[in-house]
Amino acid sequence: MFAERITRLTPSLVREILAVTQRPEVISFAGGLPAEDALFRPDPALIQGIPDGVWQYGQSEGEWRLRELVAARAAAMGLACSAEQVLILNGSQQGIDLVAKLMVEPGTPVLVEAPAYLAALQAFGLFGAEFQPFTVDPATGPDWSGLGFAAHRARLCYLTPTFQNPSGYCYSAAERDRAATLLDAGQGVVFEDDPYRDLAYDGAAPTPLVARLDRARWVYQGSFSKTLAPGLRLGYLIAHPELVVPLTRLKQAADLHSNRLSQHIVASVLEAGVLDAHVAGNLPGYRARRDAMAASLARHFGDTVRWAVPAGGLFFWVKLPQGVDSMALMRAALAEDVAVMPGVAFYPTGAQQEGWLRLNFSHASAARIDEGLAKLAALVDLQLRQVA
Amino acid sequence: MFAERITRLTPSLVREILAVTQRPEVISFAGGLPAEDALFRPDPALIQGIPDGVWQYGQSEGEWRLRELVAARAAAMGLACSAEQVLILNGSQQGIDLVAKLMVEPGTPVLVEAPAYLAALQAFGLFGAEFQPFTVDPATGPDWSGLGFAAHRARLCYLTPTFQNPSGYCYSAAERDRAATLLDAGQGVVFEDDPYRDLAYDGAAPTPLVARLDRARWVYQGSFSKTLAPGLRLGYLIAHPELVVPLTRLKQAADLHSNRLSQHIVASVLEAGVLDAHVAGNLPGYRARRDAMAASLARHFGDTVRWAVPAGGLFFWVKLPQGVDSMALMRAALAEDVAVMPGVAFYPTGAQQEGWLRLNFSHASAARIDEGLAKLAALVDLQLRQVA
Repeated sequence: MFAERITRLTPSLVREILAVTQRPEVISFAGGLPAEDALFRPDPALIQGIPDGVWQYGQSEGEWRLRELVAARAAAMGLACSAEQVLILNGSQQGIDLVAKLMVEPGTPVLVEAPAYLAALQAFGLFGAEFQPFTVDPATGPDWSGLGFAAHRARLCYLTPTFQNPSGYCYSAAERDRAATLLDAGQGVVFEDDPYRDLAYDGAAPTPLVARLDRARWVYQGSFSKTLAPGLRLGYLIAHPELVVPLTRLKQAADLHSNRLSQHIVASVLEAGVLDAHVAGNLPGYRARRDAMAASLARHFGDTVRWAVPAGGLFFWVKLPQGVDSMALMRAALAEDVAVMPGVAFYPTGAQQEGWLRLNFSHASAARIDEGLAKLAALVDLQLRQVA
Repeated sequence: MFAERITRLTPSLVREILAVTQRPEVISFAGGLPAEDALFRPDPALIQGIPDGVWQYGQSEGEWRLRELVAARAAAMGLACSAEQVLILNGSQQGIDLVAKLMVEPGTPVLVEAPAYLAALQAFGLFGAEFQPFTVDPATGPDWSGLGFAAHRARLCYLTPTFQNPSGYCYSAAERDRAATLLDAGQGVVFEDDPYRDLAYDGAAPTPLVARLDRARWVYQGSFSKTLAPGLRLGYLIAHPELVVPLTRLKQAADLHSNRLSQHIVASVLEAGVLDAHVAGNLPGYRARRDAMAASLARHFGDTVRWAVPAGGLFFWVKLPQGVDSMALMRAALAEDVAVMPGVAFYPTGAQQEGWLRLNFSHASAARIDEGLAKLAALVDLQLRQVA
């Protein structure tokens, strides 16, 4: 009785696990939440100065002032664009919904990284995407043989080249160039999701991949959830000129326009030049927690697991030893009040899966991180002894 | 190269016309905007008291406190439900997108009123709905022969029984009962859109239609755009228990969750009992403008056009004399700085169309209403003389 797509509507494992992590005794490595003390709280004066127009209906594209500010920021990071190409979103998850509507119908081949952002796989999957995964291994980078539209007749390529969720991987400038060349050779749309760019702990990330394209059409998107506050639910996309009109109409059909109060707050923050200072103020704390997790991983796991220190973002991507099942480990850990995300959730159907864990380092304190990883290491040892 | 649904993505005539009406010299009857002086501006103290949790990620279903308050309001209007059945939306347009995703795929028969809310027709149409229209004439009510799932094998029935946009029609209690009985006999989902209920100028509207169903599954939705402020982008749906989980997952895939700042503001307003007083304060002004438009219509048109005084909502639905083309009239009026919505935009494909205009009375002053209608009447006369 429902539309056929509802058979493809999977519950989000993330949210099921997050529900459990509401209990204060749980040490959670499962979510992707910014640290509480990193959240931006607008100055009351800023909110009091809300212009009257904010309360009325607004433009589907978003407030012009905010679109201009976003375009200027994009230009500064090497993605030249006009404000007309900017569409303001209720968070960047909405951009995935809009691009899925634009491009995906049952059976549409979609190139995705393996692993990839879970909620993007769900949104594209809902519309019937047939995933064509290419592996991105944190140690060796993208599997070039799988990247390119032609081999798969793919219509869309979704990727997160900068501090990816979950793998933390960041494409080098040379890898971005190579990927752009491969994608330029096809007919598909390149969709770069870039929510973690500003959370860079060891130097700035290279210019976006889509800025290196010569002829392929593209959509780039960013978010203010990781830099300011998720509760504002504000993100944006920037699109190739040919895609702006249909995406705007899809936005209009989806919810008329984005929240104007949040748009006013974020525009004011950008205009005042406060965003960069806020992010810069948060980086030392995030870097310290990242380094604390790296130290605790080394201390408790030794050589048992494989991982790389992520240069940005919010996650470690940890390869489990052969024989350890990530779902079973997740359940065992939950029973001891430690929440982790099993890697299997981030693999598109059809991708070769291995045993990985995604560990968030931004939310727990260094002491809690150490405590949680000690428990986790003991559980991995237990599983290994049971296998042996 | 796009998904096939993009061929069905029509531009919104409303928004194209609204773009023109930005010019201050234009007298606009085209939009559906609340009056500027009716918009709710939150007390700065309310906004300053924003709890810290608001800035973090939230629940896809919405804030529990707001869901409880919405459920209590629904119970007070005769729709008994639990807070678990409430899903908070980024404006009620999003509810249409979610229900379309839940129910509609290419070829799905969808029962709709003729005329019907334009942006609902667009959203259902995007997903491939095959409309099965039944006429609702402001003078004679619903065409009962067309209402019911069985005859059309329809899976979904979308209706706006209370002060409809565009027709202003309000189903009587007996008509709601009769419609509920007919719809109960089928297998489809009943979707009642109810954004105008609180804008009642001649007494309260009857209990919602879905509250009269015995066995059919249903979705009811309301909005805070018309009672508080559209810029908050906040609405809600209440769903039959069997539909809550899939709708929540669709919401999650669409944008994770709704804006928490707006949710906090609206919950505080509801908790303080301020909403009803705010609406009550606005009603005399709206009623006066409605009566001014009725008087001006009588003054300038005499018996040339047919209309009923709407008992609520924001629109008059005016039947043009035979031979007057509503699109041509719209263009001629725009050339004289008067904006109207041609009725044809509100007819689903397959519906018998007649010459109607939708006239909004909430945005222009009484003097401007009179001035605009005088011009419009002259243009109708001109068209009639050209026909003769």
